[in-house]
Amino acid sequence: MIERLSIIGVGLIGGSLARALRAVGQVGEVVGCGRSGPNLEKAVELGVIDRFTHDPGEAVVGADVVFLAVPLGAMRGALSAIKDRLDASAVITDGGSVKGSVVADAVAAFGKVPTRLVPGHPIAGTECSGVEASFAELYRNRRVILTPLSETEPDALSLVSRMWEACGAEVTTMSVGHHDEVLAATSHLPHMLAFGLVDALARMRENDEIFRYAAGGFRDFTRIASSSPVMWRDICIANREALSAMLARFGIEMTDLAESIRRADGDHLLEIFERAKAARDRYVDRVK
Amino acid sequence: MIERLSIIGVGLIGGSLARALRAVGQVGEVVGCGRSGPNLEKAVELGVIDRFTHDPGEAVVGADVVFLAVPLGAMRGALSAIKDRLDASAVITDGGSVKGSVVADAVAAFGKVPTRLVPGHPIAGTECSGVEASFAELYRNRRVILTPLSETEPDALSLVSRMWEACGAEVTTMSVGHHDEVLAATSHLPHMLAFGLVDALARMRENDEIFRYAAGGFRDFTRIASSSPVMWRDICIANREALSAMLARFGIEMTDLAESIRRADGDHLLEIFERAKAARDRYVDRVK
Repeated sequence: MIERLSIIGVGLIGGSLARALRAVGQVGEVVGCGRSGPNLEKAVELGVIDRFTHDPGEAVVGADVVFLAVPLGAMRGALSAIKDRLDASAVITDGGSVKGSVVADAVAAFGKVPTRLVPGHPIAGTECSGVEASFAELYRNRRVILTPLSETEPDALSLVSRMWEACGAEVTTMSVGHHDEVLAATSHLPHMLAFGLVDALARMRENDEIFRYAAGGFRDFTRIASSSPVMWRDICIANREALSAMLARFGIEMTDLAESIRRADGDHLLEIFERAKAARDRYVDRVK
Repeated sequence: MIERLSIIGVGLIGGSLARALRAVGQVGEVVGCGRSGPNLEKAVELGVIDRFTHDPGEAVVGADVVFLAVPLGAMRGALSAIKDRLDASAVITDGGSVKGSVVADAVAAFGKVPTRLVPGHPIAGTECSGVEASFAELYRNRRVILTPLSETEPDALSLVSRMWEACGAEVTTMSVGHHDEVLAATSHLPHMLAFGLVDALARMRENDEIFRYAAGGFRDFTRIASSSPVMWRDICIANREALSAMLARFGIEMTDLAESIRRADGDHLLEIFERAKAARDRYVDRVK
C-alpha cells in the first residue's frame, strides 16, 4: 500500500498507473504534477488524481513513491526540481522508454546514483496520449522491466516490483544497457520504420492518391506513426547509440533484400520471407 | 448475373469472391480449380464451389467469367492452360497484386492482349490463406482497381465492374503502370519492411528474448510478415522495377533519419515525425 503517490506527468502512462493502483486499493492519496492546467483539472474530474500542482518540488513533499512519467527530454529538469524536496525514504521510479539516459539524468541532478531510484519501463501504451486516454487495465498482463543499479537499495526495488504487480503486470529485471538494446530492436526501430515510411509517402507528389489505396495492412503497419512526435524525438536522442546500431543492422538486411529483388533471386527472397514468417508466427503463438 | 463462374485458385481471394457473389445471388454455378485435392474438397463442403477439377482447361469450359486467383508466378501457366478452351464470349479477370506482369503473361500465352481480359486487383486480404480463411464480406467497402487496356472490350470491363460492385466493393480504374507504382508504395514496400524487420531480429543471437519483450505495437507492425512467403516472392519479382524504385526512395528517407539520430538533431527529427503523424492521422480520419 502506497500512502502518497506523486505522479510527475499525468498522461496515458502516469494516469493509468494511478487508475490501476486505485482499482486494487493499493494507493492512498495521488498528487499530480504537470504543465497543462486543463489536463490536470481533467485528471481530478476523472478521479485519477486527488489534487495537483505545477511545481514538481511541491508535488513530491511527503510522497512514498514518486513516479516520473514525463518525456525523456524533461527528465533531468524534473529530477533536479524534486531533488531537495524528497523524503529520505521516498522511492523514485519512472516510465521512460530509455534507461541509460534516465540514469545519466539522475546522476547529473543528484551528483551520484540515488540509492532509492529504481529505473523502470512498462512495456505498454497506445498511440494516444493525455490523461483521458489512460485506463486501469493498461498494464494487465504486460511486462514491466526494472533496471536496478548496484547502488539501488533492495527494499526500493521490492516496493516498485510490488507496485507494478498490483497493476497486473509481470515484472522482470535486466541491466540498463541490455534494456536499451532490446527496446531499440523491438520498439524504437519499428517506430522509425513506420514514421519513415509514412513520411516518405507523404512527400511523394501524388501522396493523397497513394493513401487512398492503402489497405488494412497499411493501417496496422503504420499505426505507431500516429504516436507523439515529441516523445519519439526524445527517445531517439536518448537511445541514439543502440538505435543507430539497430538501424545499421536493418540497413544491411534491406540492402540484401533490395539486391535480391533487383536480381529476381526468388530462392533467396523465399528464404528471407519464410524465416520471418516462422519467427512472427512463433512469437504470436507465444503471446496469444 | 454470372451463369457459370470458373475460379482458378480457390483460396482466400477466390473463395471470398464466390461466397460474396453467392450471398447476393449473382452467380449460378461455381467451378473450382486448383492443385490441392483436400482444399478443393473443403471448398465444396463449405459450399464455396459446386464442383472442381485439377485441369484449368476443363474448368473454364462454358464459363461466362474466369477468375484467376493463383500466385503471380503461376499466372502464365494458367493462362496458357485455359487459352484454347475458353468460350468466345468468356471474360477473364484476375486478383493479382501486380498488373504489368499479368498483362505480359497474357500476351505471352495468347500472342496478343486478349480483348476480353480485364486485369484487376481487389485491395483486400488478410494474412491467412486457403479456402477456409475466405468469407463473403472480405470485399465489402474495399477498393477494387481494374486496369483495362486500350484493347479491352467495354462490355467485358462493365461486367467485371458490376461483379465487384455486387460484392460491395468500390471499383476504380487506372493504368497498369500507375497501379503497380501505387501498390509498390502502399503495400509491397510495407511488406518488405515487415519481413525485413522480423528477419533482422530473428537473426540476432538473443532473438528469443527480443521477441519476448515486443509489445502490442510490434505485433500490429509485423502482422503482414505472417503473409504467404511464396505469394510475396512472386509479387517482388513481378513488380521488381516499381518496388526497387520505392525501396531506393525509402532508403534515402532512412539515411536522413539515421543521420539525424546520430547528430541528435531533435528539430529535424520532430519535423519528420510531425509530418508523418499528420499524414497518418489524416488518412485514418478518411478511412474511418
